[in-house]
Amino acid sequence: MNNDTIAAIATAPGEAGIGIVRISGNNAIDIADKLFKGKRVEKLSEAEQRKLTYGYIIDPKTGDKVDEVLAVYMKAPYTYTTEDVVEINCHGGSIPVRKVLELVLENGARMAERGEFTKRAFLNGRIDLSQAEAVMDLISAKTDTSYDVSLNQLEGKLSKEVREIRNILLNMLAHIEVSIDFPEEDIEQVTYEEIKKQGHEVYDRIKKLLDTVNTGKILREGLKTVILGKPNVGKSSLLNSLLRENRAIVTDVPGTTRDIIEEYINIKGIPLKLVDTAGIRQTEDIVEKIGVERAKELLNTADLVIAVFDASRELTEEDFHVMETIKDKKAIVLLNKTDLPVKTDENVIREKLGDKEIIKSSMVKEKGIDQLEETLRDMFFEGEVKISDNIIVTNVRHRDSLLKARNNIHEALEAIELGMTLDCIEVDVKDCWSNLGEITGDTVSEDIIDKIFKDFCIGK
Amino acid sequence: MNNDTIAAIATAPGEAGIGIVRISGNNAIDIADKLFKGKRVEKLSEAEQRKLTYGYIIDPKTGDKVDEVLAVYMKAPYTYTTEDVVEINCHGGSIPVRKVLELVLENGARMAERGEFTKRAFLNGRIDLSQAEAVMDLISAKTDTSYDVSLNQLEGKLSKEVREIRNILLNMLAHIEVSIDFPEEDIEQVTYEEIKKQGHEVYDRIKKLLDTVNTGKILREGLKTVILGKPNVGKSSLLNSLLRENRAIVTDVPGTTRDIIEEYINIKGIPLKLVDTAGIRQTEDIVEKIGVERAKELLNTADLVIAVFDASRELTEEDFHVMETIKDKKAIVLLNKTDLPVKTDENVIREKLGDKEIIKSSMVKEKGIDQLEETLRDMFFEGEVKISDNIIVTNVRHRDSLLKARNNIHEALEAIELGMTLDCIEVDVKDCWSNLGEITGDTVSEDIIDKIFKDFCIGK
Repeated sequence: MNNDTIAAIATAPGEAGIGIVRISGNNAIDIADKLFKGKRVEKLSEAEQRKLTYGYIIDPKTGDKVDEVLAVYMKAPYTYTTEDVVEINCHGGSIPVRKVLELVLENGARMAERGEFTKRAFLNGRIDLSQAEAVMDLISAKTDTSYDVSLNQLEGKLSKEVREIRNILLNMLAHIEVSIDFPEEDIEQVTYEEIKKQGHEVYDRIKKLLDTVNTGKILREGLKTVILGKPNVGKSSLLNSLLRENRAIVTDVPGTTRDIIEEYINIKGIPLKLVDTAGIRQTEDIVEKIGVERAKELLNTADLVIAVFDASRELTEEDFHVMETIKDKKAIVLLNKTDLPVKTDENVIREKLGDKEIIKSSMVKEKGIDQLEETLRDMFFEGEVKISDNIIVTNVRHRDSLLKARNNIHEALEAIELGMTLDCIEVDVKDCWSNLGEITGDTVSEDIIDKIFKDFCIGK
Repeated sequence: MNNDTIAAIATAPGEAGIGIVRISGNNAIDIADKLFKGKRVEKLSEAEQRKLTYGYIIDPKTGDKVDEVLAVYMKAPYTYTTEDVVEINCHGGSIPVRKVLELVLENGARMAERGEFTKRAFLNGRIDLSQAEAVMDLISAKTDTSYDVSLNQLEGKLSKEVREIRNILLNMLAHIEVSIDFPEEDIEQVTYEEIKKQGHEVYDRIKKLLDTVNTGKILREGLKTVILGKPNVGKSSLLNSLLRENRAIVTDVPGTTRDIIEEYINIKGIPLKLVDTAGIRQTEDIVEKIGVERAKELLNTADLVIAVFDASRELTEEDFHVMETIKDKKAIVLLNKTDLPVKTDENVIREKLGDKEIIKSSMVKEKGIDQLEETLRDMFFEGEVKISDNIIVTNVRHRDSLLKARNNIHEALEAIELGMTLDCIEVDVKDCWSNLGEITGDTVSEDIIDKIFKDFCIGK
């Protein structure tokens, strides 16, 4: 375990009121003492711990004031990293925090790697790996719903479930060991019964977690959605209606890039990621604009297509082309312009796209949008998404571990059915236990840990 | 004075370890009590003031946890605004701070206007106007030198000087009043002598401040520099040499936009703002690339031109065109490629551009760069710039007030010379006193105050 002292800027770069330099490790307070001169106390270590203390950062080489700050130290172990931590609240903007960080580094700290503060919290046992991952998910969450999922994970709800399942597996292993050590038939019989029951419970609980993976992916990445249709059927109007009624998810945070604002909209808690929105907005005909190949590619990676047809005109060859394109996709059909006299034969569409929901709409009269939104929600979530009650698996790494664990327990159960030897079964149960342990980090390799924290931002 | 409670996000937007929501005003602590639930204390107000207290922000409507935070309250008057202040350190990223801010606003705070925290610090008398302006300058400083100037200003060095000058003016006014009230000749004689002496001191001290304005402008905005020369004379090599030896000012701050990195380089403390660097780098011939009109426009707004000629070739028509273009500009001539046999007649250049410094250089041999940098510094600063000792006026508003004040005192001195009546002189002295008061905000109108704080960032 590293015991050196690390430091980084913990706030986002940019002009702002406050910027924070964070230091963690054995020398954190010593370093702060070299640089900080308080108004009421000489050194930071003379102040009370956890107390924001007013003073200056002074360059010890020159005696020059570097910034007016509020500094605080927090003693191990009740800190973010469980080590001694110092936080220096500087003026925001790039220069103050950079100058203070430089002095901290000159005086004995090392620049923290990405995610190193959180990595230390994990390595020092304050949080487990899935909680550490939740920290990053919280920070990068794009919708309130995915944020809530991460907050649950940070609180350890996923970890708790995984631990409970692992405890059942441990119990199974204990039973198996006893039977192997005392190979009497009636004990063995009880063991088979017992581990079969427990194995099914493990299987069911893992399956329940895996059932949330699709929802988790949508919450995390957004529902990649393409609006398709020939020119002038009302695609832009649809887009505008959706945008008008459903506030863009990140709009009200000042400084967020325009890209994100334009790409995500929030439909009843579902983040809709409108693919190539800019393109769609600029031209009525997406296929014409981006070319047939690119459109196909888009459609192939899309989670959902909304196909729009003009009900006030007869179906054309182009419409049939659209129908052909989407017939094997998850799609919703919008029969638009129903405020005008209807000329489209709905049955033709129903024949071609019988399994898909067909919604009659009129963008002009603002009809059909509600139904579209409800259909959308029903398609991807069963009823209302109540995050607070549920554990939802959003992380691909967790999914992979769960899949492996499910296969292990499935094989163990098959082995039990086939009456195979307990030694055989034991291997699968152990693997299952070990694979689940990857989620919480109990059985994970250093490589994987390093890889996980490399995706973090600096200063976390 | 506003007494409502304001709130804003005080850190820059973006993914980061920490984001802070700041609340200021009478209800700050009440609002925090409605939302915060500590691990060890029930309410934030039960914690010790200034102490970072661990807990959760809970949505009172739903009881749902919104974020895991460290919260702190600071009681008036020893706070940034001199009001009660609460700071909630949330997870970084856009959602946590936004959700917490929304709850704060729902529970009785109003969204702070730009610079409103600092405006309150000013209106409540903790800092004066020039100090408030220094806060924003600190945050937006682009070089260490301009940062140091702002820090001096924040500490009140400019304010102190202005106040001292205003005290002299008050003293002059007192003398004048006495003479007017007791119009005896010997008193009047003494008064004329006295106010003349004091008037000269005021004039000299204002002039000394004004003498720093040019330096201040350069420190604040950077020296707008254009590198000019026909193709293949070594402009790109020069640029690369400057970039290599003088670290780009904002490079080491993660996340800073590339634009800024490319535009500013730091030459002996002088921020050189290389105009349209990207363009210059992509092509050897700036004029060809951007067109003659745009080049002229660039040159007209430039503070400095570095004209590069190829010493190893005879001067061409293009070179003469360059000489013609820069002959009335502040410019440095670089006679480059002097490692090769020299074919350029330096005297021709000297004849055309006699007043300009001509430096012989070889980018290949790395010769001449040092001399260029020293010339640059000597051209814009007298000797070394030692910020720590000096007050430097960087603010256009301050310059304007100083200019008005200088004219006032100049007119007063003229009036004294002409033996005009004390009433007449008094008007000028009063105006001078009033105009200087605009700098510290003692005599400034509400409109101007509003205008100043509108340029601040949100959350400061």
